[in-house]
Amino acid sequence: MMDTAIISIGNELLTGQTVNTNATWIASRLNLAGFSVKEILVVGDEESEILRAISSTAEHASLVLITGGLGPTRDDITKHALCKYFNCSLQQDPDVLKDIRGFFLRRGLDITELNRLQAMVPEKATALRNPNGTAPGLWLRQNNTIFIAMPGVPFEMKEMMDQQVIPALEKQGRKQFIIHKTVLTQGIGESALAELIAVWESSLPETIQLAYLPSPGIVRLRLTAKGDKQQLLKSLINREVEKLRSIIPEFIWGYDDDTLEGVTGKILKQRGLRLGTAESCTGGYIAHRITSIPGSSEWFNGCVVAYANRAKEKLLNVSPELIRNHGAVSREVAEAMATGAQKALNCDYAIGVTGIAGPGGGSMEKPAGTVCIAVAGPSSVISRKYQFGDNRERNIIRSGNAALALLKEKTESDPEKGK
Amino acid sequence: MMDTAIISIGNELLTGQTVNTNATWIASRLNLAGFSVKEILVVGDEESEILRAISSTAEHASLVLITGGLGPTRDDITKHALCKYFNCSLQQDPDVLKDIRGFFLRRGLDITELNRLQAMVPEKATALRNPNGTAPGLWLRQNNTIFIAMPGVPFEMKEMMDQQVIPALEKQGRKQFIIHKTVLTQGIGESALAELIAVWESSLPETIQLAYLPSPGIVRLRLTAKGDKQQLLKSLINREVEKLRSIIPEFIWGYDDDTLEGVTGKILKQRGLRLGTAESCTGGYIAHRITSIPGSSEWFNGCVVAYANRAKEKLLNVSPELIRNHGAVSREVAEAMATGAQKALNCDYAIGVTGIAGPGGGSMEKPAGTVCIAVAGPSSVISRKYQFGDNRERNIIRSGNAALALLKEKTESDPEKGK
Repeated sequence: MMDTAIISIGNELLTGQTVNTNATWIASRLNLAGFSVKEILVVGDEESEILRAISSTAEHASLVLITGGLGPTRDDITKHALCKYFNCSLQQDPDVLKDIRGFFLRRGLDITELNRLQAMVPEKATALRNPNGTAPGLWLRQNNTIFIAMPGVPFEMKEMMDQQVIPALEKQGRKQFIIHKTVLTQGIGESALAELIAVWESSLPETIQLAYLPSPGIVRLRLTAKGDKQQLLKSLINREVEKLRSIIPEFIWGYDDDTLEGVTGKILKQRGLRLGTAESCTGGYIAHRITSIPGSSEWFNGCVVAYANRAKEKLLNVSPELIRNHGAVSREVAEAMATGAQKALNCDYAIGVTGIAGPGGGSMEKPAGTVCIAVAGPSSVISRKYQFGDNRERNIIRSGNAALALLKEKTESDPEKGK
Repeated sequence: MMDTAIISIGNELLTGQTVNTNATWIASRLNLAGFSVKEILVVGDEESEILRAISSTAEHASLVLITGGLGPTRDDITKHALCKYFNCSLQQDPDVLKDIRGFFLRRGLDITELNRLQAMVPEKATALRNPNGTAPGLWLRQNNTIFIAMPGVPFEMKEMMDQQVIPALEKQGRKQFIIHKTVLTQGIGESALAELIAVWESSLPETIQLAYLPSPGIVRLRLTAKGDKQQLLKSLINREVEKLRSIIPEFIWGYDDDTLEGVTGKILKQRGLRLGTAESCTGGYIAHRITSIPGSSEWFNGCVVAYANRAKEKLLNVSPELIRNHGAVSREVAEAMATGAQKALNCDYAIGVTGIAGPGGGSMEKPAGTVCIAVAGPSSVISRKYQFGDNRERNIIRSGNAALALLKEKTESDPEKGK
């Protein structure tokens, strides 16, 4: 198995202006393809820093993926650093120049001098075509180490990885397999979970490693097995996951890349049922998560974000008396929002969320983080009250996760139509 | 100025399961405080890798911030690696033990054996208290390098940074200042922008560096100046920003951490006007961005996500004929959605967005990425048609940015009430 390093280049990554999502994405793709990333290194747009990063990773990695600094502007100097490291100069690549011309022609634009320079690539490199932009990728080799430089623009890099880099790397052959399985839990904290599964954890076979990955409202348990027998590793992991399922069935809601919105959407789609949401403190976040799924229009009707009380009354038919008697943040109002959304959006299931996202707006009785969530189904409504913290962003995410988990619980306990 | 390195520890960062937002956040805080981050290093939960990272950063950095691997579970081994590097053993810290006891007492829980172990800290370290969790931070020094280890849970780490680490570091004194100013543009691509400002760019003084930071629909231009005279650097940068404003006034909408939703919200709030949105292809994304701003309820009434055509008709009063004649994705329907939302949500301004988010659902005439956006104001409606690509996530973000930019344009061109 090739030991792999990722180098991300860009001052914006070191000043905290940009989150390094590229490295995460590349790492996930490499892992799936059986390459083990040992290190991610982020350095600025300075030749000396880039050269130091290349030398340091070349010492122990046999594959180095580089992104950033290949753009058309003057702060992009990765190509020059590579020329220096490989002791060669730039030359024009006629195929790349043709690509760039075509790129602008399709947009009805003329090629500029700046763009023409992008066809210059290090002599010792093989250029990787870029159908989505003007900066080509670069493939170089020194002794037993492969260096691949790609543009930093995420969608250009992603297509280059998927269409060219991964297929070419897979041809280089692999010796070891890495198998992951992630168990997704909700409704329990990291420490409490660790206690609950301590005996199981300590009896895990040596080939399997366990990691706890907590995020707001969700703890992911990742099992990793490494070895040369793919099938054996898979069955080892599956056996342990089965054991885990029997210990904490009520907290597990999915696996690997599952999302709560995807899992619940699948249930609804299979049953031919449609969903709507009525959101106050989540402000459209749940609808946004749902509609980020391609094809969600097949089971999602829409959402009413009723931020103002009048919107709750007018669009969701929540009675002013109910709000007066119980307060806008109450299980009663959450239930009325859910049943109101069911009617207004003409759907079988509806989520109602009302709460105080914070950090302001709380009271002694109902501090920031108080959230009431209801789910209305074809024949009944359930609701629950939650107490989260005072961080607005976390409260919105946790409310979204709790609401989708409650929806899943409700759909699973409801009888299926005609059964 | 202290050369600074950040080490992020965690297998989940190398397998691509978790985005390294911690490092970005730490870097931004350090930058504000005048520390220059030269390198971010990500390694896995393996003692040898952690030791290698510590040694390698110690070679050139005088400040090393470490996060991750301090939790209560068995895969957390940062403390042990630090003991090895500093050649010391763990000992119980009575203050930390008291903190942990208190943490569980407040939650009505007993302290477990696993939690008790978290009070063990390397002998040579000073513990940093953690009011939000059970893992203390650690402060160590070797020769002229300071090492600070913090938990990987973001909100625990953030409070520790802001309340303890940054104030303590600022006492260590600084010698050099870094001043940033970021100019935010919308409606023009990176290359076109670079051509437009090429003359200005090439005449920038040597102390100022320029970086282009593109993201879907937005290009940020970051100017950075380094030196020992803070006021001089600030006035140098401000002068260049003023020049830039006179070259591309129509594309600039904000500075630094401004967001389109924040900038437009401020205008509405100042004028005492209220907003609503009617979203089809953006599915609540615009409402979610707006409601992520604390206090947005002062100027935001709500949103209708009308995914199904029936919801457009019923809740937004869009006539079925209009949809039949022009198609659901048309400027006419976007305008009707906006004026419908104005009435339904009882607001002064409303955004209407309808489009094909993709990747599926397009046609020859209206391919994926076709989006129509309207903004209804107190006395008139404007609308525009956009052609984005076929990536769903990017299309949703670009639609959101275009809609908020159109709203800003409309509010600025409308006469103020009573004027």
